[in-house]
Amino acid sequence: MDNKEINLIEEAYIALPKGFKANGVVAGLKSNAANVNPDLEKSLVLDVALVESDVPATVAGVYTSNLVKGHSLTRSIKKIDMGGKMRAMIVNSKNANAAVGKVGEEDAEEVAKAVASKLGCSSDEVLTASTGVIGTRLPSEKIIAKVPELVDGLTNEAKTSHYAEYAMMTTDTVPKEVAARITLQNGQEITIAGMAKGSGMIHPNLATMIGIFTTDADIDKDILQNSLKKAVAHTFNRVSVDGDTSVCDMVVIMANGASGAKIDKDSEDLQIFEEALESLAYDIARMLAADGEGATKFVEIEVNGAKDADDAKLIVTAVARSPLCKTAFFGMDANCGRILTAVGYSGAQFDPEKVDISLSGLEVYKDGVALPFDEDEALERLKRDEIYVSITLHEGDAYDRMFTCDFSYDYVKINGSYRT
Amino acid sequence: MDNKEINLIEEAYIALPKGFKANGVVAGLKSNAANVNPDLEKSLVLDVALVESDVPATVAGVYTSNLVKGHSLTRSIKKIDMGGKMRAMIVNSKNANAAVGKVGEEDAEEVAKAVASKLGCSSDEVLTASTGVIGTRLPSEKIIAKVPELVDGLTNEAKTSHYAEYAMMTTDTVPKEVAARITLQNGQEITIAGMAKGSGMIHPNLATMIGIFTTDADIDKDILQNSLKKAVAHTFNRVSVDGDTSVCDMVVIMANGASGAKIDKDSEDLQIFEEALESLAYDIARMLAADGEGATKFVEIEVNGAKDADDAKLIVTAVARSPLCKTAFFGMDANCGRILTAVGYSGAQFDPEKVDISLSGLEVYKDGVALPFDEDEALERLKRDEIYVSITLHEGDAYDRMFTCDFSYDYVKINGSYRT
Repeated sequence: MDNKEINLIEEAYIALPKGFKANGVVAGLKSNAANVNPDLEKSLVLDVALVESDVPATVAGVYTSNLVKGHSLTRSIKKIDMGGKMRAMIVNSKNANAAVGKVGEEDAEEVAKAVASKLGCSSDEVLTASTGVIGTRLPSEKIIAKVPELVDGLTNEAKTSHYAEYAMMTTDTVPKEVAARITLQNGQEITIAGMAKGSGMIHPNLATMIGIFTTDADIDKDILQNSLKKAVAHTFNRVSVDGDTSVCDMVVIMANGASGAKIDKDSEDLQIFEEALESLAYDIARMLAADGEGATKFVEIEVNGAKDADDAKLIVTAVARSPLCKTAFFGMDANCGRILTAVGYSGAQFDPEKVDISLSGLEVYKDGVALPFDEDEALERLKRDEIYVSITLHEGDAYDRMFTCDFSYDYVKINGSYRT
Repeated sequence: MDNKEINLIEEAYIALPKGFKANGVVAGLKSNAANVNPDLEKSLVLDVALVESDVPATVAGVYTSNLVKGHSLTRSIKKIDMGGKMRAMIVNSKNANAAVGKVGEEDAEEVAKAVASKLGCSSDEVLTASTGVIGTRLPSEKIIAKVPELVDGLTNEAKTSHYAEYAMMTTDTVPKEVAARITLQNGQEITIAGMAKGSGMIHPNLATMIGIFTTDADIDKDILQNSLKKAVAHTFNRVSVDGDTSVCDMVVIMANGASGAKIDKDSEDLQIFEEALESLAYDIARMLAADGEGATKFVEIEVNGAKDADDAKLIVTAVARSPLCKTAFFGMDANCGRILTAVGYSGAQFDPEKVDISLSGLEVYKDGVALPFDEDEALERLKRDEIYVSITLHEGDAYDRMFTCDFSYDYVKINGSYRT
């Protein structure tokens, strides 16, 4: 992912690319939220975010694979599929606007209309996203009442842009914002920024996860869609917090061309752009896993030498989902038999007598047999904030990787009372 | 499951059928066990169980689907596949005898030899089972040293028979024993008894679960195998505690014919026998779920109207595995959107706008839309020890059901430090 043409920006925010603005306001949706980290003063109250482009932007999106889809999401998919460009995306937290019937899509449309009216565009140019509790009607009037304040406050400054990120957060404890600047072959500069929310109900094919990228590059929709799809495949789609794939998840990218730099199909510039986008998606994916609900540790599971890509994915998914492995990570217990067990029931085909496993660099299984290892050394490695599990099957060349976290008391606490 | 010919026996134990004896002894494997319920004085120390038949018994077994299999299990599968009858089954807790290489099967064989020598039979007539930590060599010498005491103490009394059950337990908090007496068409009486252990690492296709049934009926091996397979299909194979399928699991039935009653193929007696066996398996399966690690509630998930059996299984599996649903059950939070979400990502095909969900009899979703319900009424039902989730899809006639439990702080506690 290192590339001299890609410069990561330290203070990242969504409105960094030219022609974008953002804001976050308090609509009073979160007032009863019990599980928001009190350290994050802003996240306690901000609940509606807006990202806007001065000119209509080309948009691409990827969505949850869940058969049940939230109404704000369903509406956005339709709008994007219509093929037109977009001026803005409004996101609310605390309420998923899902499973409430026809009225859900109407509520989303009303919210979009209010934004469109204030911005002076068509509601077809406004995307909607909601995240939070399922099955409760969206208090759209509360959101609509705040739209003027939301739009009037739009700036391209860091501070208000951070408000947008805070407003998306539900049980997240840290904001997740990234940005990079790229110099193209002809010397032109473009910027890509991204922000995401998501902490629980996270599993590949998105999750209770909303990701928004902005860029001032000028890219055709088909190319942009393909770039986004590639960027999320092994990043956003390789994060598992609890194995639950939610109904509201989407990652969207808005490209408004404000930099004046056009990125063409099959160009070297496109390659650089895609590398940068995937690199940012990779960073955010790791942030999402590390901030998994109740997480005390970031855990990366990788497999080498699987028979094929399907088997590789089965293996990393099984280990990343296993409550027994995840509680052992929490307990800093080198209970590697549980990892072997998960590999065994993953559904992948392999010879159990050829499996090697290492835990943060310490070999614990060789040829399917447990190795004697120094417990103190193991504990030392498990005490670190990041744990790396590497599984080698010697069956083929396939590799895959998944980002997850441990399962703690706090996961149970957060999710035993999230709704109330 | 009600049948006038089947009489459940209140004080059940494995040695109830004629010609069976059992015992449990202390071999010192459990001395460091931190997570055994201190209320169960016996389970603190007993760690090796033996079930014996005076005459060689016909045996059938079903085993874990995990690609990785423990050595004691692998050995037992081989012995059963050889087709001969069996005199005894020895089970140890605390050590799974898994993933230690060739020496694992040799250790199991040495243990079986010691039992065979003391019983005066071939080691081919002795089954072995181990449950506990994976990747540590079985301390077979400790077990072998106790074999004389184990065999000498064999009786058909309740007390020593209960010892056998206690000796199998790892993180189980209650013993799980069942028995029934059946009167056949000709007036002859047979008895079936069963016992099981299993608490965590439990998921369909067995788990860290060992089940043993005994019966004094005389049944051919093929019939017995078929009866066992049918009995476990929707009972043992529908228990999920944490979605982890372990490497040591087996359910075995020993039929020694000591009652003198022969059960023939396609007979009415076989039907009664199978009903009784499934009824006992059903009871034990529920006990296993209710005693899931850290469980505070038994949860039964059922689906009606699924397109086909595969879809029905996908649905109940997804809900039973969902950490978000299970923590909500723990928190007694009627967060039914999580149930709908799990149904949605299960992989089953259905129309989200036709889904009905009820929670312990309370309708919460109708046609995919959340119904307003009385929160107090919901809490009242969620406070009960047993929670019933019923999902109706209106897509076809398929039904399935799964037994699970909630996810509590104690699950994390037990599994964060199980090994040490």
